Amino acid sequence: MPDDMSLDPLRPGQLLARGICRHLASHDFACLEEFIPAPGLRVDVMALGPKGEIWIVECKSSRADFTSDRKWEGYLEFCDRYFWGVDEAFPSELLPLESGLILADAYDAEIVRMPEADKLAPARRKAMTARFARHAARRLQGLRDPGAIFSI
Amino acid sequence: MPDDMSLDPLRPGQLLARGICRHLASHDFACLEEFIPAPGLRVDVMALGPKGEIWIVECKSSRADFTSDRKWEGYLEFCDRYFWGVDEAFPSELLPLESGLILADAYDAEIVRMPEADKLAPARRKAMTARFARHAARRLQGLRDPGAIFSI
Repeated sequence: MPDDMSLDPLRPGQLLARGICRHLASHDFACLEEFIPAPGLRVDVMALGPKGEIWIVECKSSRADFTSDRKWEGYLEFCDRYFWGVDEAFPSELLPLESGLILADAYDAEIVRMPEADKLAPARRKAMTARFARHAARRLQGLRDPGAIFSI
Repeated sequence: MPDDMSLDPLRPGQLLARGICRHLASHDFACLEEFIPAPGLRVDVMALGPKGEIWIVECKSSRADFTSDRKWEGYLEFCDRYFWGVDEAFPSELLPLESGLILADAYDAEIVRMPEADKLAPARRKAMTARFARHAARRLQGLRDPGAIFSI
């Protein structure tokens, strides 16, 4: 397998991501978990909408998980809208108000705060969409045909 | 499951597609099998290259499989290069010379004839890349999280 795709057990953040991806699918967004927008960065959920919109959701399972995150502002330049995904127990007052907010559990989620869109430049959107496409297809191939050898 | 993703048993054409996808991965192409470029059309392999190139490969397991195909010319407008994927027993002299030719088995393949590129218009390329991305991600989600409910 090219990267960690094991389904069980899922960590708390991965369970939130699962519920968020289910919910975003109901909004006609296709989601990819643990997407790498650029070397050294890894986002919990990247979602691609029916009009090509790109959303990023970072899942935080605890206060410490949020306060130790030094990278999230680097994700803003790779999406039209940026969200935090947390559960009901999370102290959401910690989160920047300009970010979006999604309340989630492992089974579903709800968009509580929709952030303003900060639209990507066309060249960046094109590059991110192609990267998303290639990453998703390779992971899928890895699951369908474990005998194939390739790198992400 | 949103569509037929069963791994076993694979039909002859699907086995060729598997070998072709393995080979194209070695050329840094990400592949998606049974991709629907537009309603009513379904191509055996769509491959997305490192520079955004879009290739389509139709797999033919027999002469009858080829001669009964009434749709293939409709696929040309959705790719930069179009290939036939066949095994060594296939009478390749039947195939149009302007198409590409890939000789395959279930485990690997070889590009025997590289066709001229007929480049997609930018808007078509953008739409196809996004469609590929969303389709691949949804199939992946269907495999990773069978509890999710969504349509392709």
